[in-house]
Amino acid sequence: MNTFGNIFRLTSFGESHGEAVGGIIDGCPPGIEIDMEFIQSELNRRRPGQSRITTPRVEGDKVIFLSGIFEGKTTGMPIGFMIKNENQRSSDYDHLKDVYRPSHADYTYQQKYGIRDYRGSGRSSARETIARVVAGAVAKLYLKQIGVSVSAYTSQIGDIKLENDYKKYDLSKTEETPVRCPDAEKAEQMIELIKQVQYKGDTIGGVVTCVIQGTPVGLGEPVFGKLHAALGAAMLGINAVKGFEYGHGFDVSKRGSELNDSFSNDNGKISTRTNHSGGIQAGISNGQDIYFRVAFKPVSTILMDQQTVDVKGKNITIKAQGRHDACVLPRAVPIVEAMAAMVILDYYLLSKTNG
Amino acid sequence: MNTFGNIFRLTSFGESHGEAVGGIIDGCPPGIEIDMEFIQSELNRRRPGQSRITTPRVEGDKVIFLSGIFEGKTTGMPIGFMIKNENQRSSDYDHLKDVYRPSHADYTYQQKYGIRDYRGSGRSSARETIARVVAGAVAKLYLKQIGVSVSAYTSQIGDIKLENDYKKYDLSKTEETPVRCPDAEKAEQMIELIKQVQYKGDTIGGVVTCVIQGTPVGLGEPVFGKLHAALGAAMLGINAVKGFEYGHGFDVSKRGSELNDSFSNDNGKISTRTNHSGGIQAGISNGQDIYFRVAFKPVSTILMDQQTVDVKGKNITIKAQGRHDACVLPRAVPIVEAMAAMVILDYYLLSKTNG
Amino acid sequence: MNTFGNIFRLTSFGESHGEAVGGIIDGCPPGIEIDMEFIQSELNRRRPGQSRITTPRVEGDKVIFLSGIFEGKTTGMPIGFMIKNENQRSSDYDHLKDVYRPSHADYTYQQKYGIRDYRGSGRSSARETIARVVAGAVAKLYLKQIGVSVSAYTSQIGDIKLENDYKKYDLSKTEETPVRCPDAEKAEQMIELIKQVQYKGDTIGGVVTCVIQGTPVGLGEPVFGKLHAALGAAMLGINAVKGFEYGHGFDVSKRGSELNDSFSNDNGKISTRTNHSGGIQAGISNGQDIYFRVAFKPVSTILMDQQTVDVKGKNITIKAQGRHDACVLPRAVPIVEAMAAMVILDYYLLSKTNG
Amino acid sequence: MNTFGNIFRLTSFGESHGEAVGGIIDGCPPGIEIDMEFIQSELNRRRPGQSRITTPRVEGDKVIFLSGIFEGKTTGMPIGFMIKNENQRSSDYDHLKDVYRPSHADYTYQQKYGIRDYRGSGRSSARETIARVVAGAVAKLYLKQIGVSVSAYTSQIGDIKLENDYKKYDLSKTEETPVRCPDAEKAEQMIELIKQVQYKGDTIGGVVTCVIQGTPVGLGEPVFGKLHAALGAAMLGINAVKGFEYGHGFDVSKRGSELNDSFSNDNGKISTRTNHSGGIQAGISNGQDIYFRVAFKPVSTILMDQQTVDVKGKNITIKAQGRHDACVLPRAVPIVEAMAAMVILDYYLLSKTNG
Repeated sequence: MNTFGNIFRLTSFGESHGEAVGGIIDGCPPGIEIDMEFIQSELNRRRPGQSRITTPRVEGDKVIFLSGIFEGKTTGMPIGFMIKNENQRSSDYDHLKDVYRPSHADYTYQQKYGIRDYRGSGRSSARETIARVVAGAVAKLYLKQIGVSVSAYTSQIGDIKLENDYKKYDLSKTEETPVRCPDAEKAEQMIELIKQVQYKGDTIGGVVTCVIQGTPVGLGEPVFGKLHAALGAAMLGINAVKGFEYGHGFDVSKRGSELNDSFSNDNGKISTRTNHSGGIQAGISNGQDIYFRVAFKPVSTILMDQQTVDVKGKNITIKAQGRHDACVLPRAVPIVEAMAAMVILDYYLLSKTNG
Repeated sequence: MNTFGNIFRLTSFGESHGEAVGGIIDGCPPGIEIDMEFIQSELNRRRPGQSRITTPRVEGDKVIFLSGIFEGKTTGMPIGFMIKNENQRSSDYDHLKDVYRPSHADYTYQQKYGIRDYRGSGRSSARETIARVVAGAVAKLYLKQIGVSVSAYTSQIGDIKLENDYKKYDLSKTEETPVRCPDAEKAEQMIELIKQVQYKGDTIGGVVTCVIQGTPVGLGEPVFGKLHAALGAAMLGINAVKGFEYGHGFDVSKRGSELNDSFSNDNGKISTRTNHSGGIQAGISNGQDIYFRVAFKPVSTILMDQQTVDVKGKNITIKAQGRHDACVLPRAVPIVEAMAAMVILDYYLLSKTNG
Repeated sequence: MNTFGNIFRLTSFGESHGEAVGGIIDGCPPGIEIDMEFIQSELNRRRPGQSRITTPRVEGDKVIFLSGIFEGKTTGMPIGFMIKNENQRSSDYDHLKDVYRPSHADYTYQQKYGIRDYRGSGRSSARETIARVVAGAVAKLYLKQIGVSVSAYTSQIGDIKLENDYKKYDLSKTEETPVRCPDAEKAEQMIELIKQVQYKGDTIGGVVTCVIQGTPVGLGEPVFGKLHAALGAAMLGINAVKGFEYGHGFDVSKRGSELNDSFSNDNGKISTRTNHSGGIQAGISNGQDIYFRVAFKPVSTILMDQQTVDVKGKNITIKAQGRHDACVLPRAVPIVEAMAAMVILDYYLLSKTNG
Repeated sequence: MNTFGNIFRLTSFGESHGEAVGGIIDGCPPGIEIDMEFIQSELNRRRPGQSRITTPRVEGDKVIFLSGIFEGKTTGMPIGFMIKNENQRSSDYDHLKDVYRPSHADYTYQQKYGIRDYRGSGRSSARETIARVVAGAVAKLYLKQIGVSVSAYTSQIGDIKLENDYKKYDLSKTEETPVRCPDAEKAEQMIELIKQVQYKGDTIGGVVTCVIQGTPVGLGEPVFGKLHAALGAAMLGINAVKGFEYGHGFDVSKRGSELNDSFSNDNGKISTRTNHSGGIQAGISNGQDIYFRVAFKPVSTILMDQQTVDVKGKNITIKAQGRHDACVLPRAVPIVEAMAAMVILDYYLLSKTNG
């Protein structure tokens, strides 16, 4: 199940410390101009080491396209691509060979497969998300042509949170802070908190909010292919994600009469007066902004003593060392966008089969 | 996209006021004894009119199996089934023909398909979930054999909420209250609240919590087929669901050192001391209890004046009449269980392909 | 795997002697006018007992639509349908309970599933193809709108065969003979042969040729979704089919210089001078006629003594009795057409996702 | 649709003259020892330039594995791999830019996608099959462990053909002749014929026969997933294939009484006395040898004058030059085996989900 999507499909491969990570994009429409600079800039947003609050592991993460592009344009053929793994120090991980780290993949992978590439968490490493960012960038290039934009930002770190209403913020400012929060003041508080946590060797989670604008009416496939179900599955498939909500989500204290979005006719254009639905009604986009929130847990790797067992069941104490993010949120933002872009394009193409 | 699942697959059909609703279960293992009484009892839990707080529309909802069962056992062949639609008063819905009700499927279906069966919300009616309950009941019969149980309950209505920790409640008491809340006192408050809301012609939402016990280690398929992503998609595919979280979910205020689940060896059995992960690590079940929460919005049909537009874009005022649930939560509980059971069985069967 | 297709999908259910056979058509475009008379006429072509050379088992085979159609048109929602099994005499089959009939499904089904509905061959009965004919008829209604026609005919029974070139025959005459062969003289010979074989209690196979005209250029998905691979899989999924060839097929004696189809420009329309390719090049339709041939084995049920074993491995002699076709070819013609129509519509809809 | 398979899945990428061809194998069972020498030897069997009757284009075709293998064994994670394209002389193909070669992919690709990589036939080049051979080799490594063998051979070139019964030949001798025909005498005739055809700049087709031995009883999924339908789709997905038949196939002149395979009990082992069914009954393997025949057309590229049109519709004459196979059969043999191995492994894994 390393394939994502129905029509626009990404199949990904790669472990943290193998030869390369990469993937194949299948079902990509022909004729898209491949803006290499844009794709690389998206990868740079995900890359470790981009700021003082992310891991110092520095990698080029240069994408190499192997097929499916001819004279700068997609051809409709599968787009193979890879990013080589550099800066590998596999011996760093020898001590993990026989250990089940708390809340990591070690135990479940070992039990399920009877074998695992333990170096740098292997396949369960966040490095796997590189392939998603590449495919998401290609999807964004297409979506741009049809007027769809996807914008995510960090809306909560620990207890420091923005208001839920994304309209209160100028999302063009998201990239101005290393924590990718459009509110400069809150951003500083978040950064301060991350630093404190990091200093103690601990980690912290948060929430990413994503807004999709310009989606045509009619994307979504009832009943099991509701658009928000596809978005939810996409987000929950990202490492460290624990929750997804769209529209008013878990805020269920209000009445139906308060949450219903009444329609109005604005000079011939039918739209809703409010948008508690989050741009999706009965699983199908209604043309309003789609917005949703994604909860990320704190990174499991902490630089503190932890009790656990080894593969033989012996009780042991471990303590991680080296370079690790204290908070994945800033780097998760482009991944959330990438998955969202893939879903929207996939459902856009799917909507064309409707007769 | 009316098919759900990979190996154990439900394809469903049916509108609220057509001939019948039903489905086909494909990939069901052979040899399962079909306990008709159990299946019917599950349908009865979903059925309208079962208590003073649900809609008085009374239907038999008797399932008729058409294939795939021989001498009381499944044969491995597709199980066709249907439930006839009775008690239809289609003329009740003539006034909906040209109206876009707020937060209903009317507008998006009409725009997407250019045609819709407007009677009783057609395909987007909650009546569609009958097929899910039947398939879920069959899945439960199999899961019971391998020691897996699925228990859901109402944990929040409006502002009245239980504690998040399901272990504080005796889940065997869930069915004792009409609102399906295992805490008798809170249940009474919830019922009171629903009655108040109903009296005003309004509606209210809430949260269903679900606990899955006895899941073997190793269910889940990295990276896009993580078990919680499959559960999330299943839940978000239920009508009126706005959010999904598992384990500590959106509660991201704690540190990694507080949320990591350390392993211990309890007389040869490896388990975790805590279970903030919610029974799933890196997308694969670890043998601990799986638990998650599902947010439901208030029903969109309210017995109050609402502004909206008709299909020609004319501003109008509508007011629903007749029989409607003020709160879907009690009836949503068996649907959540059904979808969860299907996912777990599907991933159990899928895990067998692992060599 | 009781689902067929990518976008236009049929999921079928039903055993020969269960309650009903039927299916769900998903992904059907909205707005198709359902011509019930046409659909029933297609079922009548498949029905047993229609002529002196087919089994006298007479059944109404009336299709009942359960959903997905509103005011005479498809709505884009799944179309559930069923055909009740009448004229069942299950006790006729008690003697089959413990027997492995030669070249039937008895042995393989029993070994695979550990249980089987032995009445009238259960799921492996040709009665299962009813669902295909219904879905194929719906597909034909759509294809007609876009100018595509699908015409099959019996081109060989035993040693009596037509020439391979379908252009030598007037396909409008196919339905004029009970054997569905457009050449009246050959048809009489075929009928005579079938009667002879039938008189001896034996059976005989043959070949169905199918021609699809009006297919747009561009249907087919490289590399594993070639149009002829989809057609081949569709045909090989029909009971009793042993082979599939398209274009010049197994006739490989000629040279490349003889078989290449050169292009010509005929007043602005590019077409090929010859059509050895069978209308498909590199897996994609080129706008020329698509034609292929499908080989059917003789029916396995013969009214003669046969050696075999029972489920306990004891050597026994069996002899079938009752009503059976000596040759399935005439009734296979509409099934071949139905499967072909489904594939072409499916790939037509799929081609729309191409950007 | 560049993904093949249900559980064991190959997704492939690559054009003839792009950076590389390759693929991702997903769903591969963990713990398979990767015998690199064997995999490379399979690639060598497919490679051009291996003998005096195949194209002299010499390429290393060394496979590079990028993921999914750890310490020499598969890990259950996706196996990314690639083979670099060397020996590229893209300028050789400039003259093809604007030409629709007869019976090539030029016209249909251009019409479908509006763009094509014309160099060396791009994606429709037989070079694409490299990925299949790699995945097939991995599948063979697993099948060997469970006692399944897959053996194909050239059984016909033009009019020179072997007898249909594979048991008349010693298949261990297949690799002894460059044409991969186990009958030395016929092999010489075939080689002679190919040389004659080649001398004239022409091409010729033929038939590959494949035999699968040791298949367990019970592989195959009724009704649309019949084992032979999957094998047929796999074969028809190979470049240049025009037909597929299994068991007695198109030889429909015999009666049911002659073709039925009666069961016998041979010291407790139930088997069939004959095997006209080709090892598959009602779509499910019965434990006997599976055998089938695959028809290949002559290569479309001929070194002779041909009439055709260019992309503007102008009538032109073209003549191919350079290095080309006059007959693909010898190199097709390992490709047929690879696809067959993938299907058998896929259905073997799928059969495990049966409860």
